[in-house]
Order: sequence, then structure tokens, then C-alpha cells
Amino acid sequence: MTKAVGVLTAGGDSPGLNAAIRALGKAAIGKYGMNVIGFRDGFRGLVENRIIRLNRDNLSGILTMGGTMLGTSREKPHRMPVGGKTLDMTDVIVENYHKHHLDALVCIGGGGTHKNAFRLLEKGLNIITLPKTIDNDLAGTDTTIGFDTALGIATEAIDRLHSTAHSHHRIIVLEVMGHNTGWLALGSGVAGGADVILIPEIPYEVGYVSDSILRRSRGGKNFSIIVVAEGAQPRDPDEIAAKGKKQQNGRDGSEPSGDGHTMRLARELEERTGLESRVTILGHLQRGGAPTAYDRLLATRIGNACADFVREGQYGVMVAARGEDVEAVPLKDIVGNRKSVPLDHPWIQSARGVGTCLGDEKAER
Amino acid sequence: MTKAVGVLTAGGDSPGLNAAIRALGKAAIGKYGMNVIGFRDGFRGLVENRIIRLNRDNLSGILTMGGTMLGTSREKPHRMPVGGKTLDMTDVIVENYHKHHLDALVCIGGGGTHKNAFRLLEKGLNIITLPKTIDNDLAGTDTTIGFDTALGIATEAIDRLHSTAHSHHRIIVLEVMGHNTGWLALGSGVAGGADVILIPEIPYEVGYVSDSILRRSRGGKNFSIIVVAEGAQPRDPDEIAAKGKKQQNGRDGSEPSGDGHTMRLARELEERTGLESRVTILGHLQRGGAPTAYDRLLATRIGNACADFVREGQYGVMVAARGEDVEAVPLKDIVGNRKSVPLDHPWIQSARGVGTCLGDEKAER
Amino acid sequence: MTKAVGVLTAGGDSPGLNAAIRALGKAAIGKYGMNVIGFRDGFRGLVENRIIRLNRDNLSGILTMGGTMLGTSREKPHRMPVGGKTLDMTDVIVENYHKHHLDALVCIGGGGTHKNAFRLLEKGLNIITLPKTIDNDLAGTDTTIGFDTALGIATEAIDRLHSTAHSHHRIIVLEVMGHNTGWLALGSGVAGGADVILIPEIPYEVGYVSDSILRRSRGGKNFSIIVVAEGAQPRDPDEIAAKGKKQQNGRDGSEPSGDGHTMRLARELEERTGLESRVTILGHLQRGGAPTAYDRLLATRIGNACADFVREGQYGVMVAARGEDVEAVPLKDIVGNRKSVPLDHPWIQSARGVGTCLGDEKAER
Amino acid sequence: MTKAVGVLTAGGDSPGLNAAIRALGKAAIGKYGMNVIGFRDGFRGLVENRIIRLNRDNLSGILTMGGTMLGTSREKPHRMPVGGKTLDMTDVIVENYHKHHLDALVCIGGGGTHKNAFRLLEKGLNIITLPKTIDNDLAGTDTTIGFDTALGIATEAIDRLHSTAHSHHRIIVLEVMGHNTGWLALGSGVAGGADVILIPEIPYEVGYVSDSILRRSRGGKNFSIIVVAEGAQPRDPDEIAAKGKKQQNGRDGSEPSGDGHTMRLARELEERTGLESRVTILGHLQRGGAPTAYDRLLATRIGNACADFVREGQYGVMVAARGEDVEAVPLKDIVGNRKSVPLDHPWIQSARGVGTCLGDEKAER
Repeated sequence: MTKAVGVLTAGGDSPGLNAAIRALGKAAIGKYGMNVIGFRDGFRGLVENRIIRLNRDNLSGILTMGGTMLGTSREKPHRMPVGGKTLDMTDVIVENYHKHHLDALVCIGGGGTHKNAFRLLEKGLNIITLPKTIDNDLAGTDTTIGFDTALGIATEAIDRLHSTAHSHHRIIVLEVMGHNTGWLALGSGVAGGADVILIPEIPYEVGYVSDSILRRSRGGKNFSIIVVAEGAQPRDPDEIAAKGKKQQNGRDGSEPSGDGHTMRLARELEERTGLESRVTILGHLQRGGAPTAYDRLLATRIGNACADFVREGQYGVMVAARGEDVEAVPLKDIVGNRKSVPLDHPWIQSARGVGTCLGDEKAER
Repeated sequence: MTKAVGVLTAGGDSPGLNAAIRALGKAAIGKYGMNVIGFRDGFRGLVENRIIRLNRDNLSGILTMGGTMLGTSREKPHRMPVGGKTLDMTDVIVENYHKHHLDALVCIGGGGTHKNAFRLLEKGLNIITLPKTIDNDLAGTDTTIGFDTALGIATEAIDRLHSTAHSHHRIIVLEVMGHNTGWLALGSGVAGGADVILIPEIPYEVGYVSDSILRRSRGGKNFSIIVVAEGAQPRDPDEIAAKGKKQQNGRDGSEPSGDGHTMRLARELEERTGLESRVTILGHLQRGGAPTAYDRLLATRIGNACADFVREGQYGVMVAARGEDVEAVPLKDIVGNRKSVPLDHPWIQSARGVGTCLGDEKAER
Repeated sequence: MTKAVGVLTAGGDSPGLNAAIRALGKAAIGKYGMNVIGFRDGFRGLVENRIIRLNRDNLSGILTMGGTMLGTSREKPHRMPVGGKTLDMTDVIVENYHKHHLDALVCIGGGGTHKNAFRLLEKGLNIITLPKTIDNDLAGTDTTIGFDTALGIATEAIDRLHSTAHSHHRIIVLEVMGHNTGWLALGSGVAGGADVILIPEIPYEVGYVSDSILRRSRGGKNFSIIVVAEGAQPRDPDEIAAKGKKQQNGRDGSEPSGDGHTMRLARELEERTGLESRVTILGHLQRGGAPTAYDRLLATRIGNACADFVREGQYGVMVAARGEDVEAVPLKDIVGNRKSVPLDHPWIQSARGVGTCLGDEKAER
Repeated sequence: MTKAVGVLTAGGDSPGLNAAIRALGKAAIGKYGMNVIGFRDGFRGLVENRIIRLNRDNLSGILTMGGTMLGTSREKPHRMPVGGKTLDMTDVIVENYHKHHLDALVCIGGGGTHKNAFRLLEKGLNIITLPKTIDNDLAGTDTTIGFDTALGIATEAIDRLHSTAHSHHRIIVLEVMGHNTGWLALGSGVAGGADVILIPEIPYEVGYVSDSILRRSRGGKNFSIIVVAEGAQPRDPDEIAAKGKKQQNGRDGSEPSGDGHTMRLARELEERTGLESRVTILGHLQRGGAPTAYDRLLATRIGNACADFVREGQYGVMVAARGEDVEAVPLKDIVGNRKSVPLDHPWIQSARGVGTCLGDEKAER
């Protein structure tokens, strides 16, 4: 009998989402003759029955496009704003799942989406997830759809800043995303040859950072490029908080802070070194544009495997990237486990090897 | 007799500076057998006799490089920090000019550099200038070296933001450079299809901008991309100044404001529309990276013509771009004339033609 | 009364076509309330009444896209293959023009399209043309839509080849398009710093080229990058024709020759210098991808002005780029006038200035 | 005691070589105080004692550069052209190794380099290799330095061809490198959404390919993009060989064939389908330009680990990429083992999942 599979994308968008939808859809339709229904704007589309029936035509030509053809939202099934109130819409979702005669629901998203998907699994739905986030902070998978593209954008930014930094004598500060982890800052910082990389996993000492800049300056290097993860924090918050206003509460970790920590850090480093600083905030640039070849191959591999999983009835799992292949990882092993950068990670060792300042003397040894 | 020509780059750096230095150097050496001496870090190198003798070897391989092989600075001959004081070093420069037996001094720079070069001309030096600034705000020339590259970078940023804007429901604000003119914001905004473009030449009404966003929203477009020139200003400063702190005084107009006007505008639009906003600040990204083909052709054409000018003894002029060719424009006609965007410029008409909001109802007619 | 305007794209496609269609359509609809009808696949769509009604929705999101939303073809109104025969369909076109109650027909294309458009003008239709070709060989306009993008692609290719050429000891030959003119080869060759540039306007001497390569080799440069226009020809055809097979007849000048002249030239240079050669043929790469900011601004300016021309009833003209503005140039002044590179063009002078070999000793002086 | 380590790059160049040299050099010098000597132009530099002493200065600023700062060559120690003869220079190399008091020699290269390095290992030298080739055909490592960048270039080419293919009605053929394996063609073909992918591991049937193109054409898709590995071969060579001249013997597998197989295939498909074809040959473009972030991280990780291996005296091994980490793989296990694409590789499955023609009916099941 023909199976029916629903698919939605939730959370912040990532390059490669359309590539994953395309691969899942083409394989499900082409190999197995399934019906594939897309839900718009994350879980809200499932609540409001806003659907788009996927077929060869609307799956064609989307491989290279950034964003998601289905739209996305950060709304949670159990706390959804409806008519001015915030309601638990889980039962409505379960009802609609059955109304559409779905055999499985594929949720493509990051940490938050996995929590929501897990709740639906516990309600008895056949859930499969695909790992997607530019932050790379999902446990259970080698990497996530969108990370390589965001890495490339941040690295290209460092390259550009390098070429202009040589001409002036300055501290150049680049804020990159990453939520509460340092994958994006560390990866782009090593790939771009940043002089200082500050990540949440290593609370930094302001004085140690400014000393490192001054050491470069005395050694004849008149500029320093500082890559700061949006989630980076000083070991002693007073040192930089006193100069500016309090950090905003409740900010969405995966969004650029804008007027927060990075600006204050730049001013603090100016004061301590006597060098002018300039700030670049990439913000949503990191979510946009065509995915890299790497991300398209990853998304296509995982999306294609997902169709096989539906066929085989393998539910309650994430389709994880494992080496060159994929692996079914139970959702219960993933939910709530954020993947931070281990302090002995090869990229940390790489940074140390080429002499990058990581903001804390002990971490560099 | 063999002529000697000095060359320096001053002001903020621009992609294409090395292409100009290379063309001037190769033509002066190869066609005319001149001696070519580069001075480091703008006018300071001329004060301190920090030179680099240009030859085929060090002019090779620099065509594609961002920045400037000579370094640059914003220091002025007549107000230069020396040993803790600020001194008029003009006479030292004149002395060193003669000490190096220069027949001409080529100053590559923007508005400020042209003022400084003009002072040296009045002191009797043989000055030729080349127009360079990512801001495109120099009078007397069709365009300036670096503008097309900065335009491309800002436009690519809008493209990326577009692809992610579709997925969420947001106001995306992009701050671009341009000093006190709107060339960069207008050009990239039209090229990138921005929904709102705010430039210094058209003081904007906040309410008109937020209405335009709400109109789009009601029309089914759930996002709006706002390109803001760093020099843009509201017609009524109180409307957005009241919400944040005062604009910093004395900031270098050509640098990203960071925590100034753009952040406050984003917050104001959030409040008035009820939509979330996100901010990207390109900052020095706009000065970096390899120049576009256009900028390399422009820089090569102008640099090559400059060698001819030296040969012919045509001094006291800027080598201006005029159509496909170059033209000698007297420095006295340029100095102090900033080129703003005329309100009937074809790009303004283009923006109106495709329905872009320019921040003020009257300006759009 | 509401005017109706038809639009079609013909000839080889160029980046920026969609930007021009969008600007024309948005301005015609938004400013003047016109009806805008697109015809598919060039003049054939006008013959077969294959139309697409343009509106805000289908004009949205196409600004950055390569290709043309209308499709294109190289078919001529007066010699069109129909049911196995080649017929003159001009009268059918005239009939359909009136059937759709068109006030004007906008033809976007290059040299061939202008000839065809002129024939329709002579039949009494209200014709306006927009200049589009990556070859830049249209008379009457400063430049053409698509040229800057193709220039950028070819220049980027030279940049890549440069970075690998340094590692090996080789002759690297790059074939670029340009039909029977050298704009693309010359522009990209100067912008990319090619060592040799061969264009149709300067028939080359093989021996002079190989000598120039050997001179570089003796000077310590172990590689040479040769940019060859597809239309370049040796002064003495026997010198390289004898080694390979005859040039294909009837090839479409604007297409990559593939197995023709460039391959034979590479082999000839190998034999004469004893250095290995490698060939890259860009082919249709030069027609693809997102247009540059420059091309989008050009296309938007021209498309927007075209709507004004229709409004004003200014027919029988090309909307030409003239400086920052546009100009109406009578079609009769354009048709049949190919714009070749003048031998004293500033780009030729630039090439000479930096010491590039142009294939013929006399041309370099 | 201070260790001394030599390093050379051999074979075709790849993006990322400089990143590997930099990481090895900075770590060896910075962490361990070693002497690091670079040999120019592959094994020839070791024969002729052409060295460059690596230090912080010359290792700075090379991270993003394509090519190799050391130069490279394809010359073999045991068959090196010297003064008109081809001699076995192995003993000279061994002598020079000792003359420079080397503790280890690091050879960065592909399959051929590994064979040569293994011979030197058998002569008693302390050899470590780093895996580098855009072909990805080295056994024992997850991937090789340069592959991701070449993949990105080829994929971007397909993207450009796609955007122009829509406008015309054509077969577009793209030849990519890969030596005798299909990694590059398969990876870029899947990432770029090619319609047909032909790789050496799956000998193709011409008729099956042309049928697949005609099937697309009948389904309303008027273009097809064919990605052909330079090493691809028809199952029945006569089918396409008869139309052209014999395949050149002795061509270097990793170089573009130019006038060989790809051109004949394009003509054959034209004849069988009645559709025009156009050919693009990327050639050395695939070796050039700045490495991707992925390749820089890979090269930095492996180069850094290599310094540790030297420190620990772990010789006779390749520093292989294994998951996120590195692994020492004995050279004897690698030499002579080419890594071809397995027919059940996830990328093959991905291609099948999205309906790509792989040139042979059986392979697609």
C-alpha cells in the first residue's frame, strides 16, 4: 500500500534545507511511490493544515536555493500562540497527522525541533528527524546540514577582513553565530587564520587577549583579527559588563546580539591596547545563500536515506551522518544533549599548533 | 633624462589600489624607464622617508590583492602626530620630495587625500591624484576605484539575506558604508532588490518607512529588507534618537557606526510594526577582498594614463574616469566638492520604477 | 487608455535578462498601469502565441537569476523552421502583434535580434530594443547587458589559473567567447593580468607569441597564461591550420569552438616552445549565474527607461546606455554596425602599459 | 636535541597545499622548535638541493593561497631527466637527506608521490606523507586535501550551466577531472543536480544515455546536463571511437583530455538525439583558487598532526583523515591501492534516489 509521509522544517533556517526536502521527496516519490506532504512554517502548518503537496515539479530547481520552500518558524507544538493566547496544540497535531493518513512525519531541524519532535514521538506518532543547524551543536551526528555553508561564509568574511587589515593598524572584531557553542567561530577562525578566537567553551580573560594583541603589535604585526562567537563570555563578567549595559535577557541564542557583548568587548580592547577597533556583525548572512557542495551532498544523502527509513518503518530516530554513511540514532539519545566543542578537539589542537590565542592561557597548552 | 615619480596611498583602503599602483609602476618603468618610489602608510611615509622602490618583481602578483602594498593612513601633512604632539609636517614633506629628486608625486585617495594633495600642490610640488574610495563621493570623475567592488559585496549580502528572509517573517536591516553619501546604499539596494533604501540625501520619515513595511506585510510579503547608508538620517532626529543614546560625535564618517543609528532604527521599526528585526553590519568587509574585473580595468586604465601624464608633465590634476577614457581634471575644481546622489539620478528613478521605498513620500514621485 | 506592451528575449542568453524584464514590467505596470505580455522563446513565441502575462508575482524574485524567464531562441521571423520547412513568418508576427492589441514590442537581444527587430519596424510595428549580449559588440551603446558578468567570470577563471600556474611550468590557454570581437578576451585578459591576449581585431603571429613565452621563460617566469578570443585568427592561417583539421563551417560565432582553433594553437605553441600546454574552455559558463551588481543596475536602468519610452511613444529606437543615463538611438543607426575593439582603445593601451603580448609586434607599439 | 624536518610537494597541485605546509611548519617550529626545510619543485629540489628555510615570516599569509609555495613537479626519484638523460637519482636524494641532517622527510602528494615516498622509505629514510589530490583516489584516508575545493568549483560550474541551460534547448556536457576515478564527477554531479553522470567505475552505454536525454525531452525538459569524468569510458569503445581519432596514449590521467573522449561523446549524443550540444572543459580551473574552509581545516589538522608524528618518531606512515581526527596508516598499506567509487557508495545511492542517469541501466538499480 502507498505510504504517506509528511515533512516540515522548523527553527532557524539553514542552507541545504531545500536539498534535503528535494532528496527525501524525489526518493519517496520516485523509488517508492509514496505521497509526500509538506507542512508550511514548521509545526504551525501542521496545526493549521497549511500544506503543499510535493511532486516532481515543485521539487525541481530548488537544490541550490537557500532558505526552505516550506517556510519555518520557531513555534512549539505545546506552546503555540493562537488568537492572542498560548495554547498546547499537541492534540491538534496528532489529530491532523491521522487526518492526513500519515505513516510518518519527518521533522528537519536543530536542538529545539528535536525536543518538539520527541514529544510527538511520545504521543505515538512515527517520527523521523533530519539534523539541521548552522550551529553544529546537535549530538549523535558527525555534522549538521548548513554548518559547512555557514563556515564558508564566515571564513570568507575573515579572508576579506585580512586583506584590508594589512593596510591599516587596527583590531578587527568579527561576530559569528553558533548559539551556545563555538563550532562556527572555531572552525572559521582556524580556516581563516584568525589571531584570536573566543568561544563559549573557553571563558576568556580580557587581559590575556589584549596582551596577545599587544605582543603581535610589538612583533611588527599592526593588526589583529578577533573572531568572537555570539555566545562567548569573559571569565569575569564584570570586566566588560561594567562598561556597557546589561546583556539582554531572553535573546534567542542563535541570533546576532547586535548591541551586546561584542561591541563592549571591542571597546574594552581599544581601551586596553590603545588601538582602534572595527566591528563586523555577520548576522543572518550566515544563514543565506546557496549551500556548499558539501552541504548539498550531506543533505541529499540524508534525505535519500530518510525515504529508505520510512519504507522500512524505522521510526523514532534521527538520520545521522556517520562517516560516509548514515546511521539511525534513537531520538531519546539526542534530546537535551547539546554538543559542545571538546577542549581536546583536533580544531582546538590546530589552533594551538598555529599559535592562535584562545583567550585563556591554560586552554592553549 | 630619467624621471622619478613617487606614489602613496592615503585614507581608507579600497579594493583596486594595488591594481592602480601596478599599472602606474609597470607603465612608468616599462614604457618610460622612470624610477618609481613608493611611500609607506600615506603621507607619513613621505615624512619619515619610509620607501619601497617599485620594480617588476614587487609589482608582480599584486593585481588581484585587496588592500594596498604601500599601506595607508588617514594622517594629514599639516596635522601629524609626532612624538606626542600634532605638528605641521608640510615643509618636511616638501624637503623630502626634493631630496628624492621627484619629478612628480602621485597621491591615490579620496576626498581627504585630495585636500591634502592640493595643499602640497600649493607648496609647489608636481601633484597628480588618482580617485579612490568605496564611497564614490569624489567630484570630477565618473566613478572611483573600489566602488564597484564594494557595491558587489553589499549586493551579494542582500542576495544572501533575501534567501533567508523568505523563510522567516522579519525585518532585515543591512548597514552599508558610504560616508555622507548614498551611492553604495542606493546602488546595492537597487541591484539587490531591497524593499527600502535609506540614504543621507533623502532624510527619511520613520512612520513612512514602517507603513511601507506594513503595507508589504498586508500584501502577503512577510519580510522586508532595509538597506541603510551609515550616513542616513531621519527627518526628525528626535523620533529615533530619544530611544537610544546620542549619536557619537567625531566618528569617522567612513566607518561603521556599530552601536549608533542603525541599531536604533531597527528597534524603532520593531516597535512600530510588531515584527522582529535582525541587523547585519558589513563594516570593513566592504573594503576587502579581490577587486572586481571592473575595478581592475578602471585602476589599470587610470594608473597607465597617470604614467603618460607624468611623462607629459601634466600636473595639478586628477586622472579622472570619463566614459571609456580618462581626463585631466584640475585639482582646484575637485577639492571640497563632495559628489552626492542627485535626486533625479537614474538609480533613484530605477528604485522608484520597481517600487522601492526611499523613506520619504515626496522623493518617490 | 491603458497601453499594452509585448516583450521577448532572443539570441544567446545573458545574465541580466531577467533584471531587465523585471524593471520594464514593474515600471510599466506600477507606474503606468500597462498590460505587459511576455512571448516565450524569442520570435517563435510571437509566431505561436505562446505568452505569459507578466505581473507583480511572476516578476518577483527573478532579479538575481541567470537565463531568461521567457526563454530564448535564435530563430529569425523571416526564416523560421515550421513543420519541416523554413518559412517567412513575418506576416504572422505582424498579425499577432495586432491581435494582442500591442502598442509596442520590446525586443531584448544582440546583433541578430536587432536585425530582426528592424525588419519588424519596417513592417510598421512599434519596436523598442534593449541591448543585450555578453560579447559587447553592439554599436550605439556604451555597453550591453551581460557583458560585465561574463567579464567577471572569465577574469575569475584567469585568477584561478594563475594560482595553479605558479606551481607547474606550463602554458595555460583559456578560450573565452566574444563572437567576432575581442571585448571579452581583452577585458578579462587585462583584468586578470594575462601574459598574452589574442583577439580577432589583431591577427596574431604564432612565432611572435611563442617568442614572447620563451622570453618570459628565460626571465625566470615558468608559466604563461594565454587568453584567446574564440574569434581570434592567425595572420597566416596555414601556420596553425596545417596541423589540425579544417575549421568547422557554419559554427555559431558566439559558441565555443571546442575542437577548433584553440586546441590547434595550444599544440602549435607546445611544439615551438617545448613547454607543455593545458587548455580550459569556458563555454556556456560565461552565460550563466547571477548577474553582477553592475549588470543589474544597467538592466534595471534600461528596463525602467524603456517603460518611459513606451509611455512617450518613442519607437524605432534602442534604449542605449550613455554615461550614467540612457539615450534613444535610432535602430537604423545600429543595425549591421558591429562594434569592434578600436586599436587605440584604453584597454589596448592598458595592456601595452603593463607589458602584455598582443600577438603582433606592431600592435603593441 | 632540535629535530630537522624536510618537506616537499609533488604531483599535480591542489588547493590547500600551502595550508598544510603552514600548519606543519608553524607547529614544528612553534611547538617543538624544529628546523623546517622546504624543497622546491618536488623530488627535484631534493636532488638539486634547492631549498627554502621555512620560518614564521614566509609561512605567514599563505593559508588562503592556491598552488604551493614550494612548487611541484611530477618527476620521480628513480627516473629523473638530468642533462638529457633519465637517471635514477635515489642515492643522491638519500645523500642529500643526510647532508641536511634531516630526521624526517614529509612528502605531500597523491598516488604517484606515495609510490615514490615508499621507495625512499625502503632506502631507510624516515618518511611521512600527507594525502593530497583533487581526485580523492587515495586509499587509507577518508578524503584528501584539495578534493572539497575542486568539488566546489565543479559544482559551481554546473550551477552556472543550469541557469543558462533553461533558456536554450540543449545538451550541455561538462568534463571534470578525477584521473581514473569518478569521485569528482559523481560528487559534483549529485551536488549540482546533473541529469547524467558518467564515471569510470560504470562503463556507460551510449544508447542508454541518449534515451535518457530523449525521455527528459519528451517530459518537457528541453535541456540535459551531462557531467563526464575525464576517465569515463563507454562499455563498447567502438561506438564513439569510430567517429573520432584514437584516444591519445600516455596522457597524464589527471589532465584534461581536451580533444579526446568528451568531444566525441558530445557529437555522438547530438547525432542520436537531434539536440545541439555544447562542451565546457574545466581543466586546471579545478586546481586553482583559494581552498574551501573544509580543505583548510583538513590541511591544518593534518599538517599540525604531522608535526606531532615527527616529534614522536612515527615514520613510514601517511597522516590520514579519519572522522574528526587523524590516524597513522602504514605506507605499505596504501601504495598501489587506488580508491575507486564503490557501486553501493551513498553518493551512488543518492544519485539513484533523485533519478540521475548513471549511464547503465543495471547500475541504477
